[in-house]
Amino acid sequence: MAITLSTAASDFEDRFAALLGMKREASEDVDRTVADIIAGIKTGGDEALIDYTRRFDRFEVASTAGLAFNEDEIDAAFDEVPPATIEALTLARDRIRSHHERQRPKDDSYTDALGVELGSRWTAIEAVGLYVPGGTASYPSSVLMNAVPAAVAGVERIAMVVPTPDAAVNPLVLVAARLAGVSEIYRVGGAQAVAALAYGTETIAPVSKIVGPGNAYVAAAKRRVFGTVGIDMIAGPSEVLVLADGDNNPDWIAADLLAQAEHDAAAQSILVTDDEAFGEAVMAAVERQLVTLPRTAIARASWDDFGAVILVENFDAALPLVNRVAAEHLELAFEGADDYAAKVRNAGAIFIGAHTPEVIGDYVGGSNHVLPTARSARFSSGLGVLDYMKRTSILKCGPEQLRALGPAAIALAEAEGLGAHARSVAIRMNAGGSDG
Amino acid sequence: MAITLSTAASDFEDRFAALLGMKREASEDVDRTVADIIAGIKTGGDEALIDYTRRFDRFEVASTAGLAFNEDEIDAAFDEVPPATIEALTLARDRIRSHHERQRPKDDSYTDALGVELGSRWTAIEAVGLYVPGGTASYPSSVLMNAVPAAVAGVERIAMVVPTPDAAVNPLVLVAARLAGVSEIYRVGGAQAVAALAYGTETIAPVSKIVGPGNAYVAAAKRRVFGTVGIDMIAGPSEVLVLADGDNNPDWIAADLLAQAEHDAAAQSILVTDDEAFGEAVMAAVERQLVTLPRTAIARASWDDFGAVILVENFDAALPLVNRVAAEHLELAFEGADDYAAKVRNAGAIFIGAHTPEVIGDYVGGSNHVLPTARSARFSSGLGVLDYMKRTSILKCGPEQLRALGPAAIALAEAEGLGAHARSVAIRMNAGGSDG
Repeated sequence: MAITLSTAASDFEDRFAALLGMKREASEDVDRTVADIIAGIKTGGDEALIDYTRRFDRFEVASTAGLAFNEDEIDAAFDEVPPATIEALTLARDRIRSHHERQRPKDDSYTDALGVELGSRWTAIEAVGLYVPGGTASYPSSVLMNAVPAAVAGVERIAMVVPTPDAAVNPLVLVAARLAGVSEIYRVGGAQAVAALAYGTETIAPVSKIVGPGNAYVAAAKRRVFGTVGIDMIAGPSEVLVLADGDNNPDWIAADLLAQAEHDAAAQSILVTDDEAFGEAVMAAVERQLVTLPRTAIARASWDDFGAVILVENFDAALPLVNRVAAEHLELAFEGADDYAAKVRNAGAIFIGAHTPEVIGDYVGGSNHVLPTARSARFSSGLGVLDYMKRTSILKCGPEQLRALGPAAIALAEAEGLGAHARSVAIRMNAGGSDG
Repeated sequence: MAITLSTAASDFEDRFAALLGMKREASEDVDRTVADIIAGIKTGGDEALIDYTRRFDRFEVASTAGLAFNEDEIDAAFDEVPPATIEALTLARDRIRSHHERQRPKDDSYTDALGVELGSRWTAIEAVGLYVPGGTASYPSSVLMNAVPAAVAGVERIAMVVPTPDAAVNPLVLVAARLAGVSEIYRVGGAQAVAALAYGTETIAPVSKIVGPGNAYVAAAKRRVFGTVGIDMIAGPSEVLVLADGDNNPDWIAADLLAQAEHDAAAQSILVTDDEAFGEAVMAAVERQLVTLPRTAIARASWDDFGAVILVENFDAALPLVNRVAAEHLELAFEGADDYAAKVRNAGAIFIGAHTPEVIGDYVGGSNHVLPTARSARFSSGLGVLDYMKRTSILKCGPEQLRALGPAAIALAEAEGLGAHARSVAIRMNAGGSDG
């Protein structure tokens, strides 16, 4: 059973702070192992990659040519997946694409009053690596959410890695990859796959950025290769904050809390309500629904350990709490939710009204489901097109502009004790130049 | 003396790859110390902060009230700084502000063909911490470059930390801070200041993101608190790549190479030219100019250890090399540089023409001087307004939209084995709802 809090209670602040501060992830100390694996790939290339795959995935890659899935294998995956699922994936792909096309940044180029030409130019990253977990967390929707924005950004090469432990392949991820525009798919995973993407092997050309979720080894490897390549955020367990009043159907809200809880025993579902009886009804509905879930054990653990129902006087008064939680997913199911959403400062994504369960956003809403977890919506955004692009600034002065700006630049360079900086400007102001 | 390479030489690729792969930073192992300091601040708060400041900065903070500079002290700094320098800083501030105002992102809100309402809303981070080094690397221009974009983004609280070792205060950074709109300035530094910003103390309220350059301890502390707060990139030593033909004045180009070299013994200056005699003239000019620099030893070490002159057949053929270097600063001083700039894929900032020395961009160009180093321009951008904002996505369906999108969402949830996800949608499609 989840914990219950009330803002009316005298110990509320302490209990709320404790809820926020809860450590939901066990930190596995895998860094040493990961460092060794990365070093192994750097020196051993393909051969090391095949060795690690044999050892960790119990999978024998036939030859270096067998590292990548070929077109026939991807065609075969399409035959294995029911047409209705392919259609659903295609709808999701199309909606994600249209939404993300709106995120393409515009270049800027202008001449200021002094005649200085300035510009900001966006270009796509040339090559991106996409990590896809194997086993139960191998989600085709995540392939779409990570790869489609890259394709929209104009990334030419999207190299995907997905482990096939004991030769198990999820045909759905192969289908999603082709639909999303992935250019290469390698059957490797773990820290060794991350290292191969970062440093390259004979078969896998290096990329410039690595994205996508993974286990503790993958996360540690991403942290280690950061700098050599870019990485996306390291995602924590998923979470939802639902604000719902007594006019809602408790079963609907209970279903939403459990949709989050079934992800992971460390996931967190929090209900905030202004109606005590409604809160109790939702808790009862959660208990009823828990029994009939395919992933009961996981959802039960998440709800019991991290679930919470918070009774508040009214939603306006609860706004500061909402901003402190800075939830990955925020559902607003009450009259006036549109206006309320405009006042929320910190949230990864907001779902408005009783007919917008967060799950729509997981799959087919069009917005991205890769969102900031663990309160990081205070300072970061969901995945988008900008994550696959970078901005170059451009500056151009003629002799006149240099004369106008030069004295200030020299004054500041001298104030900072940087004599060569000052000279680099001064030498151009003394027409013809001397070596200063 | 810098090394010289020629694309015509048979060993060029090996030597160029070695140049790119050069390790310019000694990695100091300070992580254990930093972890202890952070733990000390988390438990000890202000008192620990004052203790560490006594120990590491040999500075006795009078009382917790004395942690922050007060308005009188900042007024006094204005009296100490020559009016011409204040004017130069004000010009720089104004130009940085106008340029960055153009970077403010636009919110997006639209209704698609199905009637689904979608939006992307940008909000500023509420509180940001700005690290400013003490001693010789205490640059007022960096205060402007870091703080002005935050103010433009709408960050309400910009808390700056700057150590005052042996009670030495740089009045320029106080002046720059006030001009830039910094709200609080604390006389602390090192890992302890980073920890105070991330976790808060009795006097310093916690922030949501920490930016700004610092030594190995500061960098390690930023890495450690990342997740609790956001951080900017960890900057490496500065670098410049200059493409110049024989029509340039060798003294001007030599001055630019040295402006970069004087930053840091680990800085890197590379000249690419299509004119061998010009390359030799620049190298000779560097030797002449080195003698008369205030920071000769630093610039000499940088030039000797990491400087390079690369002779190419022509600049077009050199474009792939330019993109591989992915320089923080790229100067293009030859006929046709505008067109060439448009073809460059990877660079932090491009400076066009012989009258745009990179130093103009350091101070008064208007664009940001905090730029991606160590080849990271392949995947990241200079500091800007977006670094101080985050995007929230918004989704709203009514019953009709839910019916339209629901079946695909359910199909995908079931394909992923997520029964509670499927139920959260299905329960709303069976009008009235049941607990599934």
